[in-house]
Amino acid sequence: MDEAICEVCDGARPSFSTPSDSENRCVRCQESFINTTQSCECNLPNIHAGGLCFSQSNLNLPAGAVSNINYPQLAISVHSSWFAKNLQASAAACLLFSNTTACQILGNMCVQNMNSLNVLSNDACGLFNIIYRNTAGLGIVQMIPFWRTNLPWLFYGEQPGLASRVISTDFIPISFGFKSSVQDTRLQFIAAVYSAEGNFLKWQNAEGGTLQLCSDTAVKLNAAFNFGTTYRQTCILPLSKILTDFAEPVFYDIYIHFKSSDGVSSLWAVPVLNLNLQYNGKFVNLGNNMNDWYLTRRLFLVDALSGREGTNQPKVIRVATKLNISIRLAPSTQKGLIYPPLITVFYSEILVENPDAQMVPISFLVEYGMKQSEDEIQSDIALGVLGGLAILYSLIKTASWKRRIGSPLIDLQTILKFLLFYAGDLGNVFFIVTVGMGLYWLIFFKAQQFVSVLLPLPEQEKTFSTYIGCAFVLKAIHFVHKILTQLSIDIFFIDWERPRGKLLKTVEGGEEVKNVPVPVSIWRTYFVANEWNELQTLRKINPVFQIITVLFFLEVVGFSNLASMDSSSALNRDKESYKAPCNIFLRYGVSAAMWLVIALLQVIFFTVFYERFMEDKVRQFVDLCSMSNISVLIFSHRCFGYYIHGRSVHGHTDTNMEQMNLNLKREAENLCGQRGLLPNMDTQTFQVSVTNKMRQQYDRIHEPLTRRTGPSRLIDTSPGPFEQSTKAYHTMNKFLGSFIDHAHRDMDYIVRDKLFLEKIIGIEFLEPLDKSIFYNDDSYSFTGVLYYGNEATLLTFDTLFFCIVDLASQNFVLAAVLTFLQQKFFQLIRCTLGRKNLVSKTLVDERFLI
Amino acid sequence: MDEAICEVCDGARPSFSTPSDSENRCVRCQESFINTTQSCECNLPNIHAGGLCFSQSNLNLPAGAVSNINYPQLAISVHSSWFAKNLQASAAACLLFSNTTACQILGNMCVQNMNSLNVLSNDACGLFNIIYRNTAGLGIVQMIPFWRTNLPWLFYGEQPGLASRVISTDFIPISFGFKSSVQDTRLQFIAAVYSAEGNFLKWQNAEGGTLQLCSDTAVKLNAAFNFGTTYRQTCILPLSKILTDFAEPVFYDIYIHFKSSDGVSSLWAVPVLNLNLQYNGKFVNLGNNMNDWYLTRRLFLVDALSGREGTNQPKVIRVATKLNISIRLAPSTQKGLIYPPLITVFYSEILVENPDAQMVPISFLVEYGMKQSEDEIQSDIALGVLGGLAILYSLIKTASWKRRIGSPLIDLQTILKFLLFYAGDLGNVFFIVTVGMGLYWLIFFKAQQFVSVLLPLPEQEKTFSTYIGCAFVLKAIHFVHKILTQLSIDIFFIDWERPRGKLLKTVEGGEEVKNVPVPVSIWRTYFVANEWNELQTLRKINPVFQIITVLFFLEVVGFSNLASMDSSSALNRDKESYKAPCNIFLRYGVSAAMWLVIALLQVIFFTVFYERFMEDKVRQFVDLCSMSNISVLIFSHRCFGYYIHGRSVHGHTDTNMEQMNLNLKREAENLCGQRGLLPNMDTQTFQVSVTNKMRQQYDRIHEPLTRRTGPSRLIDTSPGPFEQSTKAYHTMNKFLGSFIDHAHRDMDYIVRDKLFLEKIIGIEFLEPLDKSIFYNDDSYSFTGVLYYGNEATLLTFDTLFFCIVDLASQNFVLAAVLTFLQQKFFQLIRCTLGRKNLVSKTLVDERFLI
Repeated sequence: MDEAICEVCDGARPSFSTPSDSENRCVRCQESFINTTQSCECNLPNIHAGGLCFSQSNLNLPAGAVSNINYPQLAISVHSSWFAKNLQASAAACLLFSNTTACQILGNMCVQNMNSLNVLSNDACGLFNIIYRNTAGLGIVQMIPFWRTNLPWLFYGEQPGLASRVISTDFIPISFGFKSSVQDTRLQFIAAVYSAEGNFLKWQNAEGGTLQLCSDTAVKLNAAFNFGTTYRQTCILPLSKILTDFAEPVFYDIYIHFKSSDGVSSLWAVPVLNLNLQYNGKFVNLGNNMNDWYLTRRLFLVDALSGREGTNQPKVIRVATKLNISIRLAPSTQKGLIYPPLITVFYSEILVENPDAQMVPISFLVEYGMKQSEDEIQSDIALGVLGGLAILYSLIKTASWKRRIGSPLIDLQTILKFLLFYAGDLGNVFFIVTVGMGLYWLIFFKAQQFVSVLLPLPEQEKTFSTYIGCAFVLKAIHFVHKILTQLSIDIFFIDWERPRGKLLKTVEGGEEVKNVPVPVSIWRTYFVANEWNELQTLRKINPVFQIITVLFFLEVVGFSNLASMDSSSALNRDKESYKAPCNIFLRYGVSAAMWLVIALLQVIFFTVFYERFMEDKVRQFVDLCSMSNISVLIFSHRCFGYYIHGRSVHGHTDTNMEQMNLNLKREAENLCGQRGLLPNMDTQTFQVSVTNKMRQQYDRIHEPLTRRTGPSRLIDTSPGPFEQSTKAYHTMNKFLGSFIDHAHRDMDYIVRDKLFLEKIIGIEFLEPLDKSIFYNDDSYSFTGVLYYGNEATLLTFDTLFFCIVDLASQNFVLAAVLTFLQQKFFQLIRCTLGRKNLVSKTLVDERFLI
Repeated sequence: MDEAICEVCDGARPSFSTPSDSENRCVRCQESFINTTQSCECNLPNIHAGGLCFSQSNLNLPAGAVSNINYPQLAISVHSSWFAKNLQASAAACLLFSNTTACQILGNMCVQNMNSLNVLSNDACGLFNIIYRNTAGLGIVQMIPFWRTNLPWLFYGEQPGLASRVISTDFIPISFGFKSSVQDTRLQFIAAVYSAEGNFLKWQNAEGGTLQLCSDTAVKLNAAFNFGTTYRQTCILPLSKILTDFAEPVFYDIYIHFKSSDGVSSLWAVPVLNLNLQYNGKFVNLGNNMNDWYLTRRLFLVDALSGREGTNQPKVIRVATKLNISIRLAPSTQKGLIYPPLITVFYSEILVENPDAQMVPISFLVEYGMKQSEDEIQSDIALGVLGGLAILYSLIKTASWKRRIGSPLIDLQTILKFLLFYAGDLGNVFFIVTVGMGLYWLIFFKAQQFVSVLLPLPEQEKTFSTYIGCAFVLKAIHFVHKILTQLSIDIFFIDWERPRGKLLKTVEGGEEVKNVPVPVSIWRTYFVANEWNELQTLRKINPVFQIITVLFFLEVVGFSNLASMDSSSALNRDKESYKAPCNIFLRYGVSAAMWLVIALLQVIFFTVFYERFMEDKVRQFVDLCSMSNISVLIFSHRCFGYYIHGRSVHGHTDTNMEQMNLNLKREAENLCGQRGLLPNMDTQTFQVSVTNKMRQQYDRIHEPLTRRTGPSRLIDTSPGPFEQSTKAYHTMNKFLGSFIDHAHRDMDYIVRDKLFLEKIIGIEFLEPLDKSIFYNDDSYSFTGVLYYGNEATLLTFDTLFFCIVDLASQNFVLAAVLTFLQQKFFQLIRCTLGRKNLVSKTLVDERFLI
C-alpha cells in the first residue's frame, strides 16, 4: 500500500488515530480534534485550520477569514495559500491558547497585509484587532500601552495626533555627538527578527546591511549609522536575485539601543510609517498631516510568501523599495538629544513574470533634520536690516554721483543710476548674508561636539540657492556697470615740457633761420600712455594664482570633503569609505571661505610685501609721470576726477641719457625740489572736483576730438579733422597746463585735505562753485577707474561665479576652468575697449599702446 | 528508559538489530556490519568508520589514516574530529563501493589538507592517491587523463613541466573582444559547488561575488569578469563575520564556460595554483619556476570545519585570503585568444581566539598580461637609433656653436657644451619614445575590437618610468641651459636719431650761444627697451590656458578615464561602476597627448588667427623699432647674433605728435621709402655672423659697461665709471651705426640669403673671415633668445613636469597646480635676471623697464 489506512475497529466508537506524517504508521490524532469533536474528524461548524480543530462555539472570532490579498498598486487580488492555511488557525490558536507563536504568525500576516485596517473586513489585521481587544485582561508588556502580553506589538494607537506625540515629544535619553566618545557617535539600531512561522530567530544589529537590500562594502553599509551622516544608497536589483536571497520573509521589530548614564542598556522602540497602510481604504500615511498618520512597528524587506497561490513561485511579491530613516534633533537643547527616529517604508508590489529581466530599484536613506524656523528668521532679519542700509548707502552714492556730474536735477537717469548702485549694494548684502550662512553652518555643524544643530531641510536649501542666485545677478550687473563706467572716462596727458628754444636751421640757401622752435618729443607721452594702458586690468591679487590655489586646497588638500553631510571634519578621507552627499550650505561655505581667505592672504602679501619690496606698478606709474614731466588728468565723472601731478622737478626731461641719469642721481641725492603740486609737498595725486565752468571749457576744447570718433560723415578723409584734433590736443595741453599753474583767474582752484567723513562715505561736502577743489589723496584713489581699485567687486564677482558654477555642476575643476575663462573674457573686453577709449581721448596712436 | 535497548534474544545467534537514530526503536543494523562480521559489532581487525564496517582484508588501504592537520604557518597541529570521523570511512567506501559521495568527501578532505602530497603519509591526499592509482581500470571522464571516473578531479599530473604545458599550450577556442558582441566581452567562470559532505550542490556562476569574500555592490563585484578589466578588491573582514557566514565549507571546481562558433556550450577546466601545497614537505608552488609547479583543481574560500577538535568552535580556520585570477593572452594571434586562466590561491591559517577582534585582510585580483619581449625590443631599437641621431645632431650643434663663438679649439668647454646639447637632444629622444609608447598602448589597447594586445607587465612599467624620468631630467638640464644662455646675451639699441641742429641758447648775459646741439631724447630707447623687456617671457601659447584646458579635458570631460586598465574607452563613467586602477602607460599617454594636442591647437590658433588678425607682439616690436628710429643688435654668441633694422624712413622721429602722425600717415599711404636695410627691400630682420675683428672692436667699446657690473672695487661711487659708461654708450652707438652704414672699410658686411640646408641644420657654411655676413631672416629667428622662439623646449618641459608630478601623485589637479607654480617660478627668474642683463648691457635705467 502507498499509505497506512487507519481503520476504525468497530463502527460504534470514534477512531482516535490518523495516518502519521510519513503515512506509514497510525498515530493518535491531535488533542484539539479529540477535545472538540471526540474524534479525528473536524466537521462544520467546527473549524479545521492549521492542523488544529477549533470549536466555533468557543471562539469569539468571525468565521471565514479573508485569505485573499489585495494589491492596490497592481489592482489585482491573489488567493494566498499561506493565508488560507494559517490565518484562521493562528487567530484561533492565539485567541484560545494565547499561543505566542500563533499570535506572531497572525501579526506577521497583518504586516504582510500592510497593517491595513478595515472595520468591515475579517482580514489578518481585523482578526488581530479583535484578539487585541479581547485580550485586554492579559495586561501589557514593558509598560507600553500598545503592547499586549503574548501578542506582537504591531500598532501604535488609533487616536488622532498620537503619531506626532510619539515622534516629537520624548527624547531618547542619551546625547549624540560628532566627536567625543565612541559610543554616542553611532546610532545602534537593533532588530528582533521573527520568521514568518512566528518564531523569534535572534536579535540582530542593523549594521552589516541587515536593513539594506543593496549590497556594498561593509564600511559603506555601516556608514549609514554614523550619527550625522546623511546616507543615500540606491541600486537596481534583478528580481531573480531577490527571489533567491529572500525566499522566506523575516520580520523585524526595530529598536534603538542605548546605554544610559548609569550604564544600563535599554531599548527604545522605533515607530514605522508604512506608506502602504490603508485605514478604512484610505492611504492615511501618504499625506503630510502628521495627525492623520497611523504608526506601526513591524516591517519586512521582502515578502515572497504571502503572494503564492499554491505553486512554488509566488505570483506577486512585495519589496520594501524605499526605506527611509529620519532622525530629528530636539531643538534648543544643545546636547545632541534626538526624538525617536522614524522609519518610513514603502513597499512595491511586483508581479512575478520574468524574474531575470525584471529589475527592482531600491533606495535606503538616512536623513537628519531639525526645525529651523529661527535661523531662517535670523537670516531674513539680516537681509532686511542690511538691505535697508544698502538703500541708504545707495542714496548717498547717488547724491555723490549727482554732485560729481554737476547736475542738480532728479531725472530718469538718476533713478536708473540709483538702481544700479542699489544692485551693487544689494548684491553685497546678499553675498554677505549667504557667506555668513554658509560659514555658520560649516562651523557650527562640523565643529560641534555635542550635536546642537543639524543641517537645514531641502526647502531652506532652495531659499539659499535663490539668495546666491540673486547675489550673483546683482553683482554681475554691478560689475558690468563698473566696467562700462571705466570705459567712458575722460583722460588727458598734460605734457609740461616746453621747447628748449629755437632751432638753427639751414635752409637751402645756406641762410640760418632762427625762428623754428625745437619740437617737443611725443615719445614721453607715448611711454606714459603705454604704461597707463598696461595698468588697466592690473589687479591687486594674481587672479590665476587665486583660482589655482583655491582649486589646490579644495581638491588636493581636500577641503571639499568638508562639504559632505557627515560628522567628520577630516580633510583626507579613506577612498574606501562612504562619501556622503554634499550639502549646498557647506559647499558654498567652504568654497566662498576658501576664495576670501586666499584672496585676503594675497592682498596682504601683495600690499605688505610684494609692492613694498618687489614692484609696485601704481607707484611706478606715478614715478614715471614725474620722470617724464607729464601730468595725468582723469575725469571719472563730469566734474570729478583725479589728477596725477607729474611735473618734473628738473625742468626738462626730453633729453639724452646723460641728462636723464644726472636727473635721477640728483633726485636720489635730494639735490632738487620736491615733486608735489604745492611747494615743499610730496603729494602728487589728487582727487579733483572742478567747477562747471572749467568743465565746459574742457568740453569745448575737447569737442573736435570727440567729433572725430563720432559717426563718419561726408567730411572724413579730408585732412580737416585730423589737423583739427592735433590742434585741439595742443590747445588742451596748454589750457590744462595753465589751469594747473593758476593762470586763469576765473578758473582757479584750491588744495585741501578731505575730511574724514568725506573719505568714509565718499561724498564731497563742498560744492566747487567758483573755485575747483583739489583734495590731497595719498591713497592713489585714481585706481578706482582701473581694475586695480575695484578688487573687492572683482573678487566677489569671481567668488560668486565660481560658487554658482560649482553648485550647478558639483565640480570644482569645471568651476575653476569657467572662472578662468570668464576672467580672461572680461579682461579682454576691458583691455580692448579701454585702449580704444584711451586712443580717442588722448590722441595717442593705437600702435604705441602695445 | 532513555534509550531503547536492543537485547539479544538468545546468546547463541548474533543480534542484527541496533538502536535507531532517535534511540526509541530497534532497527536492523547497516548491511556492511552484517556482511563483514555477521553481527552488529565491528571489532578489530575490521574497521568501523563513518557508520560502516569494513573488513581489513578486502581493503587495499593502509590502516590508521592520519586525522591530524598540520598548520605550517602557525606551526601547530590539530586533531580534526571531522577527519577522524570521515577520513578512513570515506576512503574505504570510495575504494570499495566507488561511492561517489564518499570519494567527494575524501577529495574535499585532501583539499582541506592543502592538496599536500607526501609519499610517506596516510593523510587524505595520500589515501586519495592510493585509490586513484588502484582505480585506473575505471577509466577517465571527459577524455581528461587526470580525471578518474567516480573520483573528483583534484590534481593535474606530477610530471615536471606539466604546469607550463597546461597553462600555456592550448588556447580557449573563443576570441575575446573589447567591443563587439556581448558574449565575448565577459569571462564566464562557472563553478561546480560541492558540500563538505560530498554532495554536488549546484552549478554557480562566478558573478555576484561567488569567489569574492569582500562584499560590494553587484555592479562592482561583477566588473571583475569584464574581459580586460584589471580588478583589485581588498578588504579587512572581522573573523566573527567569516565564521558566521561560512560555517560550513563549500568546495568549487571552477570552469570557464564558452560557446564555440557552432553554438555548443562547453566548459574548460581552470587550473589552480595552491601556494600552500607541499610536495614532500616542500612548498613547490611558491617558486617562480613554472616547471616545478603542481597544479590542482578544487578550492574553497573558508574552511571552518576541518579545524574543529570536537567542540563547536573551530580551533583553526583556513581562509583563502589571496585569490588571484591571471589571464594571459596568446601572443601574435591578433584574435583575442587566451590561454586557460590560472587561479592562484593562498590560504591563511587563523587561530581562532577572539573572533570579534581578529581581522582578516582579504584580496581578490584579476590580472591580465602577455609576453611582450618584442615591444620592449622595439622601443629599445627606437631609443638606440634616435639616440644615435641625437649624437649626430648634437655634434652638428656643437660645430655650429664653435663657429658662432668664433673659436676653433676643442677644449673642455666644447665637450661640456656638447654634453649639454646632447642632454637636450637625448631628452627629446626619450620624450618621443615615451610618448610614442604611451600613445601606442593607449590606441592599441583601448581601440581594439578583438583583443590583440594587453598592457605590459609591472617590470616594463618600471623601465617606462625610468625612461620618463630620464626624459624629464635631461629636458630640465636643457631648459636651464637655455635660460642661462638667454640671460647672458649681448644686446644694444642703436639710436639712428641725429641732433636736429644747434640750439639757440640765451645765456644770462642775453647773448645767444649757437654751439649747443639739440639733445636727442633718450625716451625712444626707453620705450623700445621697455617693450623688449616685456617680450622676454612672451610665449607662443598661453601657458595658463594650456594648463587649465588640459585639466578641463582630463578631469571634467573625463579623458582621465582612458587611463584605467579596463576595456572601456568611454569618457563618462557611471559613478557607481567599478573604477579599475590606472596604468602608467595609459595615464602618461593620455596626459602627454592632451598636452601636445592642445598646445598644437593653441599654436595654430595663435599663428594662423590671433597673430594675424588681433595682435602680434613680435611684429609690433619690429614695427616699433622702425617708428622709433632704433635698431637692435643682439649677440647670442660671440660672433653670431641678430639684427633688427629700425632706421626710420622719415629721418627724424624724435618729434611732436603732428609730425609722428604725419609720418604714420605717409607710410600708410606708401609715400616714403621702404624700411629694409637694403634699398627697396622690406627685410628688417637679419641673422648676423660677424668677423672676429668686429667683435673685438665691440668688446673693446663695451668694456667700461661690463666693468661697471663687475665686483665693486674701491673706486665705486666716484663719478668715473658712470660717465665712462655714458661715453661708452655713445661710442658704441656711433660705432654700430657706422658699421651698419658700411662706414668701416675693414669691417664691412654683405647681405645674403641663407641656403636651405643652412636653415635646416642651423649652421653657417661661410665663415665670416674678412667680411661680416648678414643673412636675411623673415622668420624672426631673433626670438630664439626669448621664450617666444623656444616654445618647443618650454612645452616639452612643461609636459614632462606635469606628467611626472601626475604619475607620482596620481592627481591631475596637483600636477596642474605645481606646473603653474613651476612656470611662474621660471618666468620670474627669467624676467628678473633678463631685466638685469638688459640693464647692464644697454645702460637703460631699471626704473624704465616696467
